[in-house]
Amino acid sequence: MICLSKRSDVDPFFAMDVLAAANKKLKDGDPVISMAIGQPAASCPMIVREAAKRALKDGHIGYTDSLGLARLREKIAAYYDEYHHLSISPERVAVTTGSSAAFNLAFLTFFDVGERVAITRPGYPAYRHIMKALGLQVVEIDTNGNGLIDVEKLEEVHAHTPLKGILFASPSNPTGASMKPDDLKNIIQFCKTHNITVIADEIYHRLNFTGPDVTALSFSDEVTVINSFSKYYCMTGWRIGWMVLPENAVRTVERISQNLYISAPELSQIAAIAAFDATADLEKIKDSYRINREHLKNGLPLLGLKLLAPMDGAFYAYCDVSKYSNDSTEFARKMLDETNVAATPGVDFDTVEGKRTMRFSYAGSPAEIDEALKRLKNWLL
Amino acid sequence: MICLSKRSDVDPFFAMDVLAAANKKLKDGDPVISMAIGQPAASCPMIVREAAKRALKDGHIGYTDSLGLARLREKIAAYYDEYHHLSISPERVAVTTGSSAAFNLAFLTFFDVGERVAITRPGYPAYRHIMKALGLQVVEIDTNGNGLIDVEKLEEVHAHTPLKGILFASPSNPTGASMKPDDLKNIIQFCKTHNITVIADEIYHRLNFTGPDVTALSFSDEVTVINSFSKYYCMTGWRIGWMVLPENAVRTVERISQNLYISAPELSQIAAIAAFDATADLEKIKDSYRINREHLKNGLPLLGLKLLAPMDGAFYAYCDVSKYSNDSTEFARKMLDETNVAATPGVDFDTVEGKRTMRFSYAGSPAEIDEALKRLKNWLL
Repeated sequence: MICLSKRSDVDPFFAMDVLAAANKKLKDGDPVISMAIGQPAASCPMIVREAAKRALKDGHIGYTDSLGLARLREKIAAYYDEYHHLSISPERVAVTTGSSAAFNLAFLTFFDVGERVAITRPGYPAYRHIMKALGLQVVEIDTNGNGLIDVEKLEEVHAHTPLKGILFASPSNPTGASMKPDDLKNIIQFCKTHNITVIADEIYHRLNFTGPDVTALSFSDEVTVINSFSKYYCMTGWRIGWMVLPENAVRTVERISQNLYISAPELSQIAAIAAFDATADLEKIKDSYRINREHLKNGLPLLGLKLLAPMDGAFYAYCDVSKYSNDSTEFARKMLDETNVAATPGVDFDTVEGKRTMRFSYAGSPAEIDEALKRLKNWLL
Repeated sequence: MICLSKRSDVDPFFAMDVLAAANKKLKDGDPVISMAIGQPAASCPMIVREAAKRALKDGHIGYTDSLGLARLREKIAAYYDEYHHLSISPERVAVTTGSSAAFNLAFLTFFDVGERVAITRPGYPAYRHIMKALGLQVVEIDTNGNGLIDVEKLEEVHAHTPLKGILFASPSNPTGASMKPDDLKNIIQFCKTHNITVIADEIYHRLNFTGPDVTALSFSDEVTVINSFSKYYCMTGWRIGWMVLPENAVRTVERISQNLYISAPELSQIAAIAAFDATADLEKIKDSYRINREHLKNGLPLLGLKLLAPMDGAFYAYCDVSKYSNDSTEFARKMLDETNVAATPGVDFDTVEGKRTMRFSYAGSPAEIDEALKRLKNWLL
C-alpha cells in the first residue's frame, strides 16, 4: 500500500458524491431530479456554443497566455464598467480554470502555511478543504445559518487571534442570502485598517432577485474578486472563471498559474467572450429560477422544511430538516432512494450544524422543481 | 500594497513568458516561428473536433464525476491493454485537467510539507515550482544534461538523506532522451524496496522515435503514472490528461479533485474519447516530427549548437549554446528579436547549467523548422 499524505485527508465534496449516486441511478433509468449540485439545467446560450463551434472549425485549440486571452480579459473589464460603473484595467483580470482554480491561486498567492484565514459557516465546502490541503488554518465564523459575515463578529474573531485573510461569498452558497452594501463596505474598511487580505467570491452575481449586485471592487482596489461563467452564464462544464486582482498580485498569480495550470481551456475562453452578449437568453433562464424560487420559498416551509436564510440570490434554498432527521446525510440518501430527488446534506457546508440542514439547488426547470416538491410532499406528509 | 505569501515566490515558466513575447510580436505582424513551447502546431484530428461539435449541438456541457466520464476512463484503460498488453482497471484511472492538475493532485495526495521528493536536473520546471508552492523539499538529481535518472545516482542521493518520493519523465522534457526498460525496472524496484513513492510522467509516450514505449505500470501497480492528451494527441488547449493510480490512492485523489477542480472540462473529455480512434491522423503528424528531428539532429550541431542528449522521443532538441552565450535568457531574447525564432532558455529546466543551454521544440511543420534553421544559420554563422 502506497503511503498517503496527511494533508490529503480532506472531506469529500458531498454534493459531488450525491451527483455520482444520482448519475448512477439515472443510468439505471430512474427518473432522478437533481437539486444536489449548483449547476444550471439549461444549456449555455446558442451564441456561446456557436462561438466554440467556429473555433473548432478554424482548428487550433492551444495554450493561451496564462492570464488568458486578451479579448476575454477586456470583455471582463468591460463588464465592470457596464454593470458596476467601475473602471477596471484588463491587466488586473486573470482568466482561470473555473473559480476552483481562482481560489487555489488566491490562497497560494496570499497565504503561507499556518496562516489564519476566516470563512463563514455555513459556506462553500471547497474553501476549507483547499485551505486544509494547502496548510492554512481555517477560522470558521458562525453566521447563525445565513452564511453572511457581519463586521462585529469579524472584530471579535480578529481581536481574539489576528486573521491574515478572509474569504466570503455574496450571494452566499449554500443560503442565497446577500450582503447589504453597507455591511460589505464596513467589512472591507475593517480589513483594510487591520491589514486583512480580502477575497470576495462573487460567483452568484447577476443572480440577485431582491436588489442589485454590489461588488467588493466598489470599495477597494486592494481586494481580490473571484467570479465565474459557471452560474449565471450556465457554463459549469466549461471550467472557466476569472479573478480581479490587486495590481501588485498580478505577476505572482501569472507565475503560479503558468506552473499549476499553464492556461485555462482555450475553447472555453473563446466561448466565454461570447457569453457577455447572451444577456437576453440568460435573463430568460433567470426568469425560470425566479419561478422556482417563489415555489420553493412557499413550498418548502409547508413541508416542514424551514428556510434558514432569505433566498435573495444564487439558486439555493437552505433548510432545516430537523423535524424529520438529525442526520442529513442519511436523509439525503433516503430521499434519493425513495423519491429520486437529489439534494445536498448540510454537512458539506456546516461542520457543526450541518447534520440538521439540507441545500436544495433550484437551477432546474420549473416543471422539475414542481415535480420535486410534489414527490417530497408525498414522502414527508 | 497587498502582502504576498512567501511560497508564491516561484519562478515563472520562462517558456510561457517567451510565448507571451512571441504572441506580442505575432500580433505586430512579425513572422515568428515558435519553437518555444511544447505544443504541436497541428490541430487535433477532425474526428476529435467533430466529437466536440456534436456535443455542442446536443447542448449541455456540465460537471462530470470528478474522476471523469466513465467512457473516457474505459478508453484510457483499454489503451494500456492495446499498447502495453496490461490489464488496468478503469477504476484506477483519474481524468484530470491536463497533466498540470495530475501533478498537483499527486503531490498533495502523497507528500506532506517538508518531505523530500527527487526530480531530475534538467527537467520540466513546473515540477519544482509546484513542489515549492506546496512546501515540498525538492531534491534535484544531476543527470549530466540528459534528463534521465540512473539507479546508482538515486541510491547515492537516498543514502545521503532519504527520499519520500521521486518523479521522472521518459521521454524527458527538455531533452527527449528515453529510459532503457531495464533502467526503469531497476529504479522502480529500488523505490519499492526503499518505500519511495514513484510518479512517472509519460506525457511523451507514443512519441518515441527509437524504440517502443515502456510504461512504469509494466513493473508495478503501486506507481502513479501521469499522461495527457496534449502532446501526441495534439490537444494542449483542451486541458485534458489522466493519471493511473495505486488502488488505495483513488478515493483520496477523487476527494481532492472534487474540491480543487470539481471536474475536467466535459467537452474536452468527450473529445478525448475520440482521440484514441485518430491514430492514422496522429501518426501522420508524428511523421512530420520525424522529419524535423532528422533536420535538427544534423542541423543544430552544424550551427555550433551541440546536442546534450539523444533525441529519442518527445519533440525537443536540447543544446549547448555556450559557443555563443553564457546567458541563455539573453540569447533567447536576442534570437527572438533578431530572427523571429522563439525557443526556451535552459534556465527553465536547469537551475545550475541552464544558462548555457536552450530547448528547441520541433512540433511545428517541417517547412517552419527548416526556415528556422536557415534563419539561425544566417544569424550565427
